[in-house]
Amino acid sequence: MTEPTDKKHASRRRFLVGAAGLSATSLAAGASGRAALADNAKNLPPNVADWMRTLGDGVAVRAYGHPSKFEKDVIRRDVQWLTSSRESSVSFTPLHELDGIITPNGLCFERHHSGIAEIDPNDYRLMLHGLVDKPLIFTLEDLKRLPRVNRIYFLECAANSGMEWRGAQLNGCQYTHGMVHCVQYTGVPLKVLLAQAGLKANAKWIMAEGGDAAAMNRSIPLSKALDDCIVAYRMNGEMLRPEQGYPVRLVVPGWEGNVWVKWLRRIKVGDQPWYTREETAKYTDLLENGKARKFTFEMDAKSVITAPSPQAPLRQKGFTIISGLAWSGRGKVKRVDVSLDGGRNWRAARIDGPVFEKACVRFYYEFEWNGEALLLQSRATDDTGYVQPSKESLRKIRGVNSIYHNNGIQTWSLKVDGEVENVEVG
Amino acid sequence: MTEPTDKKHASRRRFLVGAAGLSATSLAAGASGRAALADNAKNLPPNVADWMRTLGDGVAVRAYGHPSKFEKDVIRRDVQWLTSSRESSVSFTPLHELDGIITPNGLCFERHHSGIAEIDPNDYRLMLHGLVDKPLIFTLEDLKRLPRVNRIYFLECAANSGMEWRGAQLNGCQYTHGMVHCVQYTGVPLKVLLAQAGLKANAKWIMAEGGDAAAMNRSIPLSKALDDCIVAYRMNGEMLRPEQGYPVRLVVPGWEGNVWVKWLRRIKVGDQPWYTREETAKYTDLLENGKARKFTFEMDAKSVITAPSPQAPLRQKGFTIISGLAWSGRGKVKRVDVSLDGGRNWRAARIDGPVFEKACVRFYYEFEWNGEALLLQSRATDDTGYVQPSKESLRKIRGVNSIYHNNGIQTWSLKVDGEVENVEVG
Repeated sequence: MTEPTDKKHASRRRFLVGAAGLSATSLAAGASGRAALADNAKNLPPNVADWMRTLGDGVAVRAYGHPSKFEKDVIRRDVQWLTSSRESSVSFTPLHELDGIITPNGLCFERHHSGIAEIDPNDYRLMLHGLVDKPLIFTLEDLKRLPRVNRIYFLECAANSGMEWRGAQLNGCQYTHGMVHCVQYTGVPLKVLLAQAGLKANAKWIMAEGGDAAAMNRSIPLSKALDDCIVAYRMNGEMLRPEQGYPVRLVVPGWEGNVWVKWLRRIKVGDQPWYTREETAKYTDLLENGKARKFTFEMDAKSVITAPSPQAPLRQKGFTIISGLAWSGRGKVKRVDVSLDGGRNWRAARIDGPVFEKACVRFYYEFEWNGEALLLQSRATDDTGYVQPSKESLRKIRGVNSIYHNNGIQTWSLKVDGEVENVEVG
Repeated sequence: MTEPTDKKHASRRRFLVGAAGLSATSLAAGASGRAALADNAKNLPPNVADWMRTLGDGVAVRAYGHPSKFEKDVIRRDVQWLTSSRESSVSFTPLHELDGIITPNGLCFERHHSGIAEIDPNDYRLMLHGLVDKPLIFTLEDLKRLPRVNRIYFLECAANSGMEWRGAQLNGCQYTHGMVHCVQYTGVPLKVLLAQAGLKANAKWIMAEGGDAAAMNRSIPLSKALDDCIVAYRMNGEMLRPEQGYPVRLVVPGWEGNVWVKWLRRIKVGDQPWYTREETAKYTDLLENGKARKFTFEMDAKSVITAPSPQAPLRQKGFTIISGLAWSGRGKVKRVDVSLDGGRNWRAARIDGPVFEKACVRFYYEFEWNGEALLLQSRATDDTGYVQPSKESLRKIRGVNSIYHNNGIQTWSLKVDGEVENVEVG
């Protein structure tokens, strides 16, 4: 912020801004004149006025809109060395470039096992069978003619932050935490479909299977299926994106992303889990003693500071906003605390915007940065009382064999030059 | 929905689905075998299995994602005959193709006066001056360093449904009601900026001016500026889209879209309104007696059935979902009622999903359609007690000279063949 008559040599102001009340006061005003201000475009610098001298593009030139060309670097990114092919790989949400709680559909991270199945919605079918009174096949139009709900949920891959189990490895929250997104889903409660088919008395589990070449499938307890699962066909109002399971995916609120089966083609009802590849060879948590935790569905409370972060360094001293995301698969995020000194002292962050069950919340912590090195951390607490643990305490219990379910506290080292690094403390 | 062994000659089921409890029961099951079901891909029809036989595109092939190619008709559309140029025109949100309350950024309607200003964010400046202690100029980085909030609001053009004042004219809710959208904004409360500059004792109004070639400007009472206005730079998490004012627009919750100045370049504080072109020659409501209502900022409670609608006819008898949007510029939508007989009888619709102040809400009304002709209407009530009026009662008070602020009840005529037309009743 500058005073208008002193643009070149702007006297930066320090802000004293109450985080809660949002009242701002300007202090230590630099000495500068009070020249009359231009009341029209003529006196503005030429580079500012350029776009006021010509007509811009008209409406519907882009019938489906895109971001500004100046935002071309705000994209999903993959890590080529991570997997041998892009068809079975992951791309990450650019969390450091986003704010609020809604993720734009075009930036929701991807995780595929055989690439993006391209399904003609007219040929789409969902089969529901197994321990039911009446096996059924639904077309997409059938699903759209059943009662629907709209719910905002986070979706996190079980392997999010997986590289961090063995120490600070990836330098940027896009890579350490970018396998999470949060959108509004529209679809049919799964319990409605199950009621249509009629459950046999011995029904206890369902198996959900995708229509991709991997036929990715997972077992889910019937109690969850009857609770809050949604057979969803829309995200943020429009039809699902192809990479998110177009035309239909399963939404399993609060549970690891792998069970949110995309391109959903089949739901089978059974009396026990199927022990599929993706819940035996993968998506189990191998402990130090050689035993594995299985069916670790719920994503525990977690948070990350998205800015400042390695990809979003601090450019100025003075009033500074720490911004981050928090979520819990067990309910609502109740509070978020921030530490500037690697976890020795904690201060309550301000949660701003809506707080939904099993959805991302946005938090801010505002402070004056005097240019000293800091160790930034955030810590989420959910409404079950669960407090996000340190990575070290998690490793003591779980070891470092698994790449899954790392919800440990992330540390960013803020350097005196404003650059930020992924580090370990303690 | 079909039983799997009887695909060709599917016996359609009738659903009796309680709208509130979402419990579904299948009745009158058609006679059909109970053949064993295929448990793998082999026995599925070839057209279903095709996408399971090859790998699809890998991750980050589209670093910024797009909708499925099968959704290519879900786009903003303009009406070429409506305006003489696309640079000063409007495109409409495809409401009939959306659900939930969030509008994807790429489908938010457009209204420009001189086309889309293309602003380099590094050259962006916002000047704040007039009756202030200290005139200020903010860069985009300055704004990002001030405390920010996240709020979900609807934005409706004052001229939305404007053609309908003189009778049913446009056949589709995209055109009759498509100048509304609803997203989450992130930005600085305007009151924070005003506090930075310091208000003079006689400050009563602000003027907001855009950086487009029209330098579109409007007067806004200071009380509103200090209440809930936001100087916003993000929508649905990412930076504003160019056609929505990139990099900065004013958010004026609940008020007509014209005052949500895009490409915001200047805010001047004064002691009276400026009576700019856009609040004298335009955006005033000319009454029958030749007088004009001025500064009709607030958008009254309104609703529309988005499906079935002229662009989304009914394809089947039986269980049918009426889906629609409601909003109020004065607060929260409290209830929505639906009529099937042109307003003689009303039944409570089910509001599903979050209900925010000055945001869209989604409503559903579920019923059995037996194929008879119906006159579909919806009626919103907000938490001030205001009930959306009929078009006829509005015309009695306002006449038909103005194109603005038509929040009258919309009627869709559902024909026996499922087609839907825009009609007038009463």
